Amino acid sequence: MSSPTPPESHTSLLERPLFAHVATERPDGSLQSSVMWQVWDRDLFRFTHTTRRQKYKNLLHEPRLAFSISDPDDPYDYIEVRGEVVSIEPDPDAAFYRSLQERYGVSDPITDADVRVVIAVRPTAFRAITGGRTEREAGGES
Amino acid sequence: MSSPTPPESHTSLLERPLFAHVATERPDGSLQSSVMWQVWDRDLFRFTHTTRRQKYKNLLHEPRLAFSISDPDDPYDYIEVRGEVVSIEPDPDAAFYRSLQERYGVSDPITDADVRVVIAVRPTAFRAITGGRTEREAGGES
Repeated sequence: MSSPTPPESHTSLLERPLFAHVATERPDGSLQSSVMWQVWDRDLFRFTHTTRRQKYKNLLHEPRLAFSISDPDDPYDYIEVRGEVVSIEPDPDAAFYRSLQERYGVSDPITDADVRVVIAVRPTAFRAITGGRTEREAGGES
Repeated sequence: MSSPTPPESHTSLLERPLFAHVATERPDGSLQSSVMWQVWDRDLFRFTHTTRRQKYKNLLHEPRLAFSISDPDDPYDYIEVRGEVVSIEPDPDAAFYRSLQERYGVSDPITDADVRVVIAVRPTAFRAITGGRTEREAGGES
């Protein structure tokens, strides 16, 4: 199944090295919001993570997630992505983690390569907001 | 019950007119992430919203939510708040909405005062992140 396409007006928010606020569900049903790096190949979104952390447990429990990315130059413009985890794979030698460090201009020592994973997410819906308003806001969408 | 207290290092992120990325659960169990204004009185957080919109339905369905607020000057510093809705009250004459407009330096015409509500949230947990690392990250908290 091919992924839905975001509106062209907001694709740069997905392509630039910006910060995704990622909503996940904890095993007790409460929610969590975490800031994460991401990269998008116009099909899947990928995140680096480790098997030691809470979000990993959350995503094993509930693979559906959502995230929002705002324009740092105008926070009233943002895009929301809803999707679900399609794979969680090991990241041998932390090669993927390293590529995200480069994308985000960071070069920290990597001490957790043994537990690093790549989380791949297939988007199921995009919602683009301009000036704090969705096109469908009057219809109750946001 | 008194609310938990955030670490002093991160209270300014809650006090400044910054943007909260708010995680809510939709009635079908999938998640949503939305950018919202907020104001904190050191006990409750309050959000302006309308009864016409999806998030209102989400919060009637599941009153637990979470939100994250990053420092625009350093997105590796952020705070996550988890909490639950304790009340949703009408906002007569949109007085609360107007006060948030002032807080955020906006003065748009108000055309939806009849459906405006004030959503009050009691925090149940704070998680402060500095330089992309929580204090408890090694323990699997983030």
